[in-house]
Amino acid sequence: MAAKGLFITLEGGEGVGKTTGMDYLEQYLLEQGVDLIVTREPGGTRFGERVRNLLLEVQQESMDDMAELLLIFAARAQHLREVIEPALEKGRWVLCDRFTDATYAYQCGGRGIDPAAVSLLETLVQGALRPNATILFDAPVSVGMARAKDRGELDRFERESNNFFDAVRENYLARAAQDGERFRVIDASQPLATVKESLETVAVQIVEAARSRGAL
Amino acid sequence: MAAKGLFITLEGGEGVGKTTGMDYLEQYLLEQGVDLIVTREPGGTRFGERVRNLLLEVQQESMDDMAELLLIFAARAQHLREVIEPALEKGRWVLCDRFTDATYAYQCGGRGIDPAAVSLLETLVQGALRPNATILFDAPVSVGMARAKDRGELDRFERESNNFFDAVRENYLARAAQDGERFRVIDASQPLATVKESLETVAVQIVEAARSRGAL
Repeated sequence: MAAKGLFITLEGGEGVGKTTGMDYLEQYLLEQGVDLIVTREPGGTRFGERVRNLLLEVQQESMDDMAELLLIFAARAQHLREVIEPALEKGRWVLCDRFTDATYAYQCGGRGIDPAAVSLLETLVQGALRPNATILFDAPVSVGMARAKDRGELDRFERESNNFFDAVRENYLARAAQDGERFRVIDASQPLATVKESLETVAVQIVEAARSRGAL
Repeated sequence: MAAKGLFITLEGGEGVGKTTGMDYLEQYLLEQGVDLIVTREPGGTRFGERVRNLLLEVQQESMDDMAELLLIFAARAQHLREVIEPALEKGRWVLCDRFTDATYAYQCGGRGIDPAAVSLLETLVQGALRPNATILFDAPVSVGMARAKDRGELDRFERESNNFFDAVRENYLARAAQDGERFRVIDASQPLATVKESLETVAVQIVEAARSRGAL
């Protein structure tokens, strides 16, 4: 039987360069001969993309926090069953732009939902599945905001307060500190070239660890 | 402080005359001077109606059972926060066309989802809130099917097997048997006039019980 694939997630707030990081990591892993799929949350399936649209559409209106949380996990359940789990079963690696750590950061850190509720849904939907490695792009909120402004994407920031994004960042960092084995934190406030170097170091570690376990 | 309103749900399979029963009950309660709102699931809010459409839209495709379940509870959370709970708090009665008993019947009975998962979501989303009274319209599947056929709605039956609807009915009846205080079962296979008489008897009981408790 083929080894199960590796499940790698990228996490981080707005404007931290996660998209650039995803592209770089995808390229690097492909060069190493990794059989890889790249996906994202919320979304990742036709149903998930509909849910994503629904979340964005009603963001202006008053969506109940619990309704939002359940919607996120509904999309996640479909994403797991349709995309992530079948790929991992076939020994493929999955690189996913945001996953359940984002739910803790945004819904618990940002919106104040009880983490016990997220934990309960995490177990219900994922069973024992957790990412094998999570790369957190971290930068002060002001840095992310300045970058988003440069790209004309400031509206995302204007919708929520600074406190919201500070709380999201705090939550991400606290989770990373609690699970140092799974998390790798990249200081995304550095110049792009330095960020890429840090990311390369992390990528090399992940690939070598997989090779040494015979998982690649 | 005004007494909290009564939460009454109507349940039952396809073609059992639930809609006629809703209309009748609404009329009867209004005549008794009940301050009433009438709503339905899935739906009941703008967000809920969008989820309802999403559920119907993707019914043809392969939606994961857990995703479907979470979507149903997402719509329910919004419905509770936006419509049901505020009405009950103001002392209004809420008459709701299907609620969580339908989730047990269709998702557990019909699709085979573990009732423990539904129970867990029920507590997460509803806290301690349960309907004060639930009127179950019960008829053999063949009767409901014949009526749906007469109305040109057979497609709903063609989508699922007879076993599915038998299991839904069994689940409804088993839940009613386990909670005889909350459930009133109406034999919906009787002629319409007899069904109305049964429903009137139940309605009178509910109203008199509320009056004797000073809740009306």
